[in-house]
Amino acid sequence: MLHLIIADSELELVPKELQNHPSIISHAKRRFKKPEEILLDSTYHHTALKSLKDGERRGRPDIVHLCLINALESILNKEGKLRVYVHTRNNEVIYIKPETRLPRNYNRFVGLMESLFKNRVIPKDLALLRIENKTLSEIIGDIGPDAVFIMHENGVLMSPQSFGRKLNEYISPAVIVGGFPHGDFLSVLEGEKISIYKEPLMAWSVVNEVLINYEGSLLW
Amino acid sequence: MLHLIIADSELELVPKELQNHPSIISHAKRRFKKPEEILLDSTYHHTALKSLKDGERRGRPDIVHLCLINALESILNKEGKLRVYVHTRNNEVIYIKPETRLPRNYNRFVGLMESLFKNRVIPKDLALLRIENKTLSEIIGDIGPDAVFIMHENGVLMSPQSFGRKLNEYISPAVIVGGFPHGDFLSVLEGEKISIYKEPLMAWSVVNEVLINYEGSLLW
Repeated sequence: MLHLIIADSELELVPKELQNHPSIISHAKRRFKKPEEILLDSTYHHTALKSLKDGERRGRPDIVHLCLINALESILNKEGKLRVYVHTRNNEVIYIKPETRLPRNYNRFVGLMESLFKNRVIPKDLALLRIENKTLSEIIGDIGPDAVFIMHENGVLMSPQSFGRKLNEYISPAVIVGGFPHGDFLSVLEGEKISIYKEPLMAWSVVNEVLINYEGSLLW
Repeated sequence: MLHLIIADSELELVPKELQNHPSIISHAKRRFKKPEEILLDSTYHHTALKSLKDGERRGRPDIVHLCLINALESILNKEGKLRVYVHTRNNEVIYIKPETRLPRNYNRFVGLMESLFKNRVIPKDLALLRIENKTLSEIIGDIGPDAVFIMHENGVLMSPQSFGRKLNEYISPAVIVGGFPHGDFLSVLEGEKISIYKEPLMAWSVVNEVLINYEGSLLW
């Protein structure tokens, strides 16, 4: 079983300090929602983000969407060998049941995340998704993996295939992938740093490489 | 070099017979465009699609977006070993230069495709994307691959790893993946049918498995 953690993801509702910004108010109005109910999204809130701390990396629900849609539709997940967690910059964690079929359409995904931040669990009966306040080290403590690997551009360089084989030396390893566009992790991390390519890769490309090479070494 | 063709993709502008449908008119108006200038999208045009031939599978730009965003950000593409083509149900083909950085945001991708259908090439100077009228067999004739494989749920079952190794027996193989949600290809296909899993997979999952297992066998 592989535990995939998308960590320090740039997924959050519009923070208090931006709720009065004209671009946020008008975007919320167009969506028939209140400013505090909508996701921060760099595509639409670019100007507002300029005044925010870490503004150049925040508001990226698209990265989370792409990572999840790839992970949940992977062969590894269909074989029941994957658990996925989304940890955010505000130390929240989203638990996603493996059988969850996320919206393929981005706008619907955004709506779903907004509903999750509001209701904390959806749907109420099946609880396919739920959110809790937790730091990255608390999540890892709960999982109790027998190894923790951090995908990092300054990590030990090895091929994705070798890394897939290495992961298979463990029963229940955890792999941490940064859910942000650039820069470094915000959380304090303990684990072995690994790099699978000589250049930085997008988060979803790392997710694909890790899952498929782990699967290749595990299943076939 | 691997040639990846996303074939019979459900990517098209709103067809003539739906341009007067109330849901299309109001959606186009909200986007400040004419009905004939917007992409058909099942998320928004569900009711209108009911009256259209093959309506239950049409209007899926999201599938093309997910396939492309994974393919273009893959290690294989960064290594210069991949060419990607999008063939549509209306026998058009989109050529995408490997260095193209597609919008990660779905709505921006939709806008880009609408502009491509209108202008046939974007941007005019770099021509990162261009569209031409061509059938699937004409595209394959142009490429001249030394083998053609069709990813198909009724194909010969083999593991993704074995298929990656098999692809590496050729210098310039072409792999065809269906860019539609379910059902069969519309185009007449010649090539070896391959299935990499006992259940149907989403198009982007097949793309990820093919590229990463080919890469694994080629590069490492």
